[in-house]
Amino acid sequence: MNDREARAVLSIASEPGDERVGALVAQSGAVTAVDLIVAGELSGAIRERVTKVLASNQIAVALNKLEACSGVFVTPCDSSWPTQLYDLDLAAPLGLWCRGDGDVQELSEHALAVVGARAATAYGERIASEVGSLAADHAITVVSGAAYGIDAAAHRGVLASGGRTIAVLACGVDVAYPSAHQGLLERVAENGLIISEAPPGSKPHKRRFLVRNRIIAALSASTLVVEAALRSGSLSTANWANALGRPVWGVPGPLSSATSAGVHVGIAQGEMNIVADIASVLETVRPKSASSVYHSSSEALAVLEALKRRVCTTDQLIAQLQHGTDSQLTAHDVLGTLTLLQLQGVIIQTALGWKCL
Amino acid sequence: MNDREARAVLSIASEPGDERVGALVAQSGAVTAVDLIVAGELSGAIRERVTKVLASNQIAVALNKLEACSGVFVTPCDSSWPTQLYDLDLAAPLGLWCRGDGDVQELSEHALAVVGARAATAYGERIASEVGSLAADHAITVVSGAAYGIDAAAHRGVLASGGRTIAVLACGVDVAYPSAHQGLLERVAENGLIISEAPPGSKPHKRRFLVRNRIIAALSASTLVVEAALRSGSLSTANWANALGRPVWGVPGPLSSATSAGVHVGIAQGEMNIVADIASVLETVRPKSASSVYHSSSEALAVLEALKRRVCTTDQLIAQLQHGTDSQLTAHDVLGTLTLLQLQGVIIQTALGWKCL
Repeated sequence: MNDREARAVLSIASEPGDERVGALVAQSGAVTAVDLIVAGELSGAIRERVTKVLASNQIAVALNKLEACSGVFVTPCDSSWPTQLYDLDLAAPLGLWCRGDGDVQELSEHALAVVGARAATAYGERIASEVGSLAADHAITVVSGAAYGIDAAAHRGVLASGGRTIAVLACGVDVAYPSAHQGLLERVAENGLIISEAPPGSKPHKRRFLVRNRIIAALSASTLVVEAALRSGSLSTANWANALGRPVWGVPGPLSSATSAGVHVGIAQGEMNIVADIASVLETVRPKSASSVYHSSSEALAVLEALKRRVCTTDQLIAQLQHGTDSQLTAHDVLGTLTLLQLQGVIIQTALGWKCL
Repeated sequence: MNDREARAVLSIASEPGDERVGALVAQSGAVTAVDLIVAGELSGAIRERVTKVLASNQIAVALNKLEACSGVFVTPCDSSWPTQLYDLDLAAPLGLWCRGDGDVQELSEHALAVVGARAATAYGERIASEVGSLAADHAITVVSGAAYGIDAAAHRGVLASGGRTIAVLACGVDVAYPSAHQGLLERVAENGLIISEAPPGSKPHKRRFLVRNRIIAALSASTLVVEAALRSGSLSTANWANALGRPVWGVPGPLSSATSAGVHVGIAQGEMNIVADIASVLETVRPKSASSVYHSSSEALAVLEALKRRVCTTDQLIAQLQHGTDSQLTAHDVLGTLTLLQLQGVIIQTALGWKCL
């Protein structure tokens, strides 16, 4: 048995994030750790489970399922191992089951975690989608959990802008959970990666969602919480990011919105930085890249060109750009572009109209 | 000429907040300051203006106008002088022209400044009105500027709940500005005070609005900014409050809302604390009083009573309270009460329903 095989055994037999197993592997290596566990080094059910995995065909089954979805099992021995996961210390994953198009190390080099409420509002989903889209424009990978609400909106925003995204699952990478997201997960696999600590075929367990969140936080340079109710599970990702010393950001929302209350309390307690503009968040993931996006669309160029000449109201801009020599933008184009440029912090709305910063 | 008369002369002749005049008064007293200015102690137009006031009937005119609206001119010699204004040091007002029902010192003992955008959103006005209403329930006086938008909504929220409020104007206390707020100002005078540094009859000048804001900040124990665009004038009140060492609070709003952008940047730059619930803000004005409000309405009592028994969804609460033995609340009553109690931080919304904290 080599290191990779031993890690596969432990990955199948142990609960993700079990620090006793992590400590044994760190101390003795994975191969010896398996032997020691079989010899009774650790108390509890782990001995029985490892013995059972070794005596059964569970590894072959997992590897067959992995092959069926063209996946790979990446371990710290591989050059594609994302070294930022070492920050998790004894809670670092033993290996990552990966499915999709890309190298997890390369893909997570400039990564932003975007997380939040499953029961998100239309406002929250719109912001998550716009963040995904802007991240894509900056060649920043969005890491999320493929759940309903904010997660899905963030993945979709990236995909709509042709960017790359990673979905970290609490179940196997070949299991569509939630099942309504089967199509979304397929598209993530085609434009990024689906990864999991749990072997292919694993069903999602409730406690695994919280443990999974540490991978989302550790893979990413920054974590952004878009919406979260008080005591929301998505706050656990923020807690992990804080514990890892990574910047954590919270998107403000209406004071009266229960799905923003967890974010507001997080900001009030100093656990998150308030997001005043999305460009500042992206800057913490990929410094000095923020200026490149502004010229990414012809609409943005036309609006900025007009505003460089003079301050304009929305109506003036629409009138001017609908019949411009260089552009024929619809009112819808202009409004969408203004919102995007405002969120990027490139323009502001003053009493006299829109103005370049 | 006595001290009060000398202060009236200087109040009419000088620009509010002129620190050279403030320094002279602090050093020599108001009576001698008038003499010194007439003798040419200060450069600029002030000498000419003081001489003109002394030679004219301007004081008599101002006092007649004050009498016509049953006002008083309050100075530091009076027991009703709000001593917190001394924190303004040389920029402290020379006197306050007051109109209405109450003693400015007593009324401002527990005072919260509520300020914000004139071009406020419906969301901002609703929050301002709810803050006014909650402040009234806590016997906290709301200080604001009677402007369109947030100011007016805050005053109105107080008045609707039978509370007390102070409008600090940049014009004379007998001048309705904006004129559309004549009715509102009358009601403020009946349930609190209209005050100004400028003598009765004064027209509003643009620069006086920013100078006026220091009085709003200095009178109040805390300042709350409900909505403010970037570079908004209402941020000057926050700056004054910060300079005076008073807590400053900012209400979060949608990231995409231009009228919340100034608040979000203020929070990001550490110039404001984010408001996660209004009770925390009121607590900084009147400690330990926050618990009293929860029993102020029979609706609140009925909702809390139900939630003390068990966690309920909104629908369960509506069903229960519509046909309760003690209460017959409409769905509208229940929803409004839930929002109010949530904003007060007394209840939270969990995945299972509403819960008492």
